[in-house]
Amino acid sequence: MLIETLLFICLKNMPNPMPQSPQSLRTMYLQDPSTWTKPWVDKGIIWEEIGALPDTAPYPDSNPYSESKFKLGEKLFNDPLLSKSGQIACASCHDKELGFGDGRKVSYGHDRQLGERNAPSVAMSAFGVEKFWDGRAQTLEEQALMPIVDPKEMAYDPKKAAQRIAQIPAYKQAFKEAFGTETITPTLMAQAIATYERGLMPRNKQFDRFLKGSTKAMNDQEIQGLHLFRTKGRCMNCHNGVAFSDQSYHNLGLSFYGRKFEDLGRYNISKDPQDVGRFKTPSLRGVGQSKPYMHNGLFPHLRGVINSYNAGMFRPKPTNEQETDPLFPTTDPLLRPLNLTEEEIRALEAFLNTL
Amino acid sequence: MLIETLLFICLKNMPNPMPQSPQSLRTMYLQDPSTWTKPWVDKGIIWEEIGALPDTAPYPDSNPYSESKFKLGEKLFNDPLLSKSGQIACASCHDKELGFGDGRKVSYGHDRQLGERNAPSVAMSAFGVEKFWDGRAQTLEEQALMPIVDPKEMAYDPKKAAQRIAQIPAYKQAFKEAFGTETITPTLMAQAIATYERGLMPRNKQFDRFLKGSTKAMNDQEIQGLHLFRTKGRCMNCHNGVAFSDQSYHNLGLSFYGRKFEDLGRYNISKDPQDVGRFKTPSLRGVGQSKPYMHNGLFPHLRGVINSYNAGMFRPKPTNEQETDPLFPTTDPLLRPLNLTEEEIRALEAFLNTL
Repeated sequence: MLIETLLFICLKNMPNPMPQSPQSLRTMYLQDPSTWTKPWVDKGIIWEEIGALPDTAPYPDSNPYSESKFKLGEKLFNDPLLSKSGQIACASCHDKELGFGDGRKVSYGHDRQLGERNAPSVAMSAFGVEKFWDGRAQTLEEQALMPIVDPKEMAYDPKKAAQRIAQIPAYKQAFKEAFGTETITPTLMAQAIATYERGLMPRNKQFDRFLKGSTKAMNDQEIQGLHLFRTKGRCMNCHNGVAFSDQSYHNLGLSFYGRKFEDLGRYNISKDPQDVGRFKTPSLRGVGQSKPYMHNGLFPHLRGVINSYNAGMFRPKPTNEQETDPLFPTTDPLLRPLNLTEEEIRALEAFLNTL
Repeated sequence: MLIETLLFICLKNMPNPMPQSPQSLRTMYLQDPSTWTKPWVDKGIIWEEIGALPDTAPYPDSNPYSESKFKLGEKLFNDPLLSKSGQIACASCHDKELGFGDGRKVSYGHDRQLGERNAPSVAMSAFGVEKFWDGRAQTLEEQALMPIVDPKEMAYDPKKAAQRIAQIPAYKQAFKEAFGTETITPTLMAQAIATYERGLMPRNKQFDRFLKGSTKAMNDQEIQGLHLFRTKGRCMNCHNGVAFSDQSYHNLGLSFYGRKFEDLGRYNISKDPQDVGRFKTPSLRGVGQSKPYMHNGLFPHLRGVINSYNAGMFRPKPTNEQETDPLFPTTDPLLRPLNLTEEEIRALEAFLNTL
């Protein structure tokens, strides 16, 4: 009886073993997500199943979509006149050809000053609320003006930018079409830019097509990777939902606390000691096109990122002087060695490239 | 007798069949290049064996290396003061983090104007003579000043740039150390920049380490790719020597003759009708880090480049009106379908990534 009870408890708490054949995995993942193997997430983790993106991006009631607003936003997003020098556009660091990032560890801005963080892709702007690696903007509209003001980025004044583009008749006309007024204000500029960014949602990616029934959209290795993502890889603890992000903040041991390149992340905004070194969970949509990775662009390739997660990520030890420092950051306990084999790492990478 | 003769001719002209085992290929390629299987190159092709890069880059007598000149060149290469706006440096389009290119199909320049060609990597500047995709600069020193002048690139005047940096005491000091004079001239600026660029020669790459005896530096697939590069892939017809370039010009059928994005390439410089649509053979050193590919950045991935070569590249047909056009470009007859298998394509790609 004791043995039976123990066995029952063990079996109940043991994660589902991985189905053996590629065919059985394929069959399972072509069925409704409600029938999939339960993902391996830790107790207390609030998660949503991963799935196909909706056909149209979600837009807030406060700034609904219109085609004219989207087109105006695209024009503004690509216009270097929004910068003091007249040389730097939003698109300079969020380049369509570079996964809406800039391919660099950290970006260059006004007078070629180096920033401190990797330019995040704006391709999934429609999802989640808080923006920037530290979530310091509450909305996309608020975010859109902040790089214009930043002395290291576009180093300008949105009011002056508005005055500057108000000299251009085509802009007056475009604002009239989008907002019914020729009076160009920073608020309207931000609304147009945010409207454009929300529309950049990736489409027709392999993963989505597979979920919608295109059985050939993913090969066996990619499906194995999908299964590892949801199970042994433990990825869904943080990267869940259709955007593959919990929209929360985690510490991966990369804050360089007390060292060169120190970045306290979310703590700078919240002032909560628990937030030291925490950064926003980025969406994994389009991740294969948006290297390098992490808030500081530390990893040039996806393989390196996966290898580091496989090793359990970084756990900096406090020095003697840091032992009693209440701000010394703790790496998220969700991270632990994964024991993925070389083949499993490759499968996981292959899956990520389908997003 | 006839059969014997035919057989003799056939066998004599048949390229060496590929050795079967990975081990035999490994053994062969670890020996001196003079013992390697003869590469598959067409009659009349002047080629040099591929091989390890020298430890130091070749420098011309007219502008020999010195450390102070190299350091000054690095400073100038990264200085946006050389541009009219004070925002664009040489490094803007030749970014160390992006394989000394910019990761884009074509580059943005002054006032965010779009250029017409892909920014080539400058990492192999020390090799070959003529510069730019069309070879319009005779030396690297001549080349260095041309983007400063180009109204679509830095849009400035090298004399004004020299005057501007002459206001900075640290530059005066650096020129004195490098050239023995505080008088800053465009000629000296170009010499310093060229000195820096020549020193960017890639080092310690897998292929070179393998040739020098590190047997583990290349795996079996990469060695298979090396063999395919030299044989069935026919790559050495154009990409030969330690720089993996014949320093010549070829037509790959990508000139878009008579269409949008037409680019006549080498013809613009030579005015020789045979040069219509010909572009310089780029070095393949560091090719894995310098996407996208071709003079117009047409291919975002190496795989696509190899697939296109495998299909024999492009052979645009003249329209009725173009039938008698003496300028209608002809795709290089060196290009022909290769019949590489999927596995061979992967091996070739793996090899290219060792360079």
